[in-house]
Amino acid sequence: MQFDQYVARVNAKLDHYLTTQGSLTEAMRYSVLAGGKRFRPILTYCVTDMFGVDLERADSSSCAVEFIHAYSLIHDDLPAMDDDDIRHNQPACHKYFDEAQAILAGDGLQALAFEVLVNDSLLDSQIKIELLSMLTHAAFEMAEGQAIDLSIVDQTVEIKLLESMHRKKTGALLSCAVDLGAIVAQSGEQDRTLLKTFSQAIGLAYQIQDDVLDIEVPVGVLGKQQHSDSEKNKPTYPSIIGLQGSKEAYQALYLQAKDCLCDLSVDAQVLQKLIEKLEARVF
Amino acid sequence: MQFDQYVARVNAKLDHYLTTQGSLTEAMRYSVLAGGKRFRPILTYCVTDMFGVDLERADSSSCAVEFIHAYSLIHDDLPAMDDDDIRHNQPACHKYFDEAQAILAGDGLQALAFEVLVNDSLLDSQIKIELLSMLTHAAFEMAEGQAIDLSIVDQTVEIKLLESMHRKKTGALLSCAVDLGAIVAQSGEQDRTLLKTFSQAIGLAYQIQDDVLDIEVPVGVLGKQQHSDSEKNKPTYPSIIGLQGSKEAYQALYLQAKDCLCDLSVDAQVLQKLIEKLEARVF
Repeated sequence: MQFDQYVARVNAKLDHYLTTQGSLTEAMRYSVLAGGKRFRPILTYCVTDMFGVDLERADSSSCAVEFIHAYSLIHDDLPAMDDDDIRHNQPACHKYFDEAQAILAGDGLQALAFEVLVNDSLLDSQIKIELLSMLTHAAFEMAEGQAIDLSIVDQTVEIKLLESMHRKKTGALLSCAVDLGAIVAQSGEQDRTLLKTFSQAIGLAYQIQDDVLDIEVPVGVLGKQQHSDSEKNKPTYPSIIGLQGSKEAYQALYLQAKDCLCDLSVDAQVLQKLIEKLEARVF
Repeated sequence: MQFDQYVARVNAKLDHYLTTQGSLTEAMRYSVLAGGKRFRPILTYCVTDMFGVDLERADSSSCAVEFIHAYSLIHDDLPAMDDDDIRHNQPACHKYFDEAQAILAGDGLQALAFEVLVNDSLLDSQIKIELLSMLTHAAFEMAEGQAIDLSIVDQTVEIKLLESMHRKKTGALLSCAVDLGAIVAQSGEQDRTLLKTFSQAIGLAYQIQDDVLDIEVPVGVLGKQQHSDSEKNKPTYPSIIGLQGSKEAYQALYLQAKDCLCDLSVDAQVLQKLIEKLEARVF
């Protein structure tokens, strides 16, 4: 199965990169290699593959987005933030180590994400700058999204604000994962525009679906605490537009995503399959 | 006075960059624009200026190192880290805002540091990649140095370990500030090697001097809590080699730094003056 191969590939590369971080290596490996769906690297590899470009050229991008994602989870789980003790079915980084180590492991992972891209010897400088421009911006938006998320705890918010928060907090990096693949593949402008619409749609759909799964799926399957958002009085899609409305919203977004794939200059079957897999996911 | 002009210049540029960070703008501005000696940007500007290159080309580098420095102070001050409540004579970021905002403001500043470099339209991609290679590595080393620093609280350590910790925690970014100036100025290999020796010497000297000043200077002058390191049972140079030994150590390093400046291909009077200023500093 193609996706499994991408996951195996990125896991091997992540493992390879995480060997020379001195006193931070252990905490970084603990969090990054604990698992996770590797959804962002899968997106980057899918897009690169679709355009017939050697996956080797996408390894640094795939790892970079995953490092940014991993750092954000470590920091989000901190007591001062979402205060979650379990991540990927094991104690969160700040529980297994301590808060200071978790803060620093996250800080180090953010630096490492950019470092692996900068030092990729297979890509020329111009492409690397394009990749870094996307990734630095997405990383910033993610932090800003998390700040908005924390600011609306216990608040009644409009669906527009919730959407804007999700587009930054989760959507920006998911969208970036697709963008990086398109840049590595040096795809044309029209394809990039279509892929942007695609990635923004699945980025938001994924989050709304997360809100739904958080209510519907047993805790052992999620790998983290269930009802964690609603119990913290964070506004969620179901809390604003209901469970059924939320399901319809994310299904419509997945449909929109599928639609734009049809107009790409290349066969996008792999991304069509990915959407089907996402729609069917239970965690 | 030349250094004051550099400070005024970087302050204006920092202010300019910190306007579009949405919900994180306020906390980022609060911490970055509160003051600080701007020692790292001064180093970058000095080196660029010394080679006769337009300072405009060094603005993004100067701001990037300062953003990294500012983020590290915000995170270092957190309760789980050094737990300091005062910074630049005002409440630390996590005291004025809250811990979550401080973590995110720091995270955002790290991303922003790389983003301003990546998007500098005055520099070509090759130079930007060189700059980013230095800065991402220094940012990582800084986080690793802080992890070592926290791991040796209450420990009796060899001076070698303390030196290695300082070279990473403080030295790496100071050294990087010099490197960035040399890259922007496209200086030759020999000059870069000399400047590397120079920057490593002042990086360590600066930290040893900090340990000395922490003991000798009244709190109002430091802008932070006095004895903050020794009271936390962190090993310091004076605690290992004594106050007099520490003074001799940093003075010898400043002397070494001055010596390598004489062999540079350009007139390095500005850096000579900077060392004199550093030696004479009381905070």
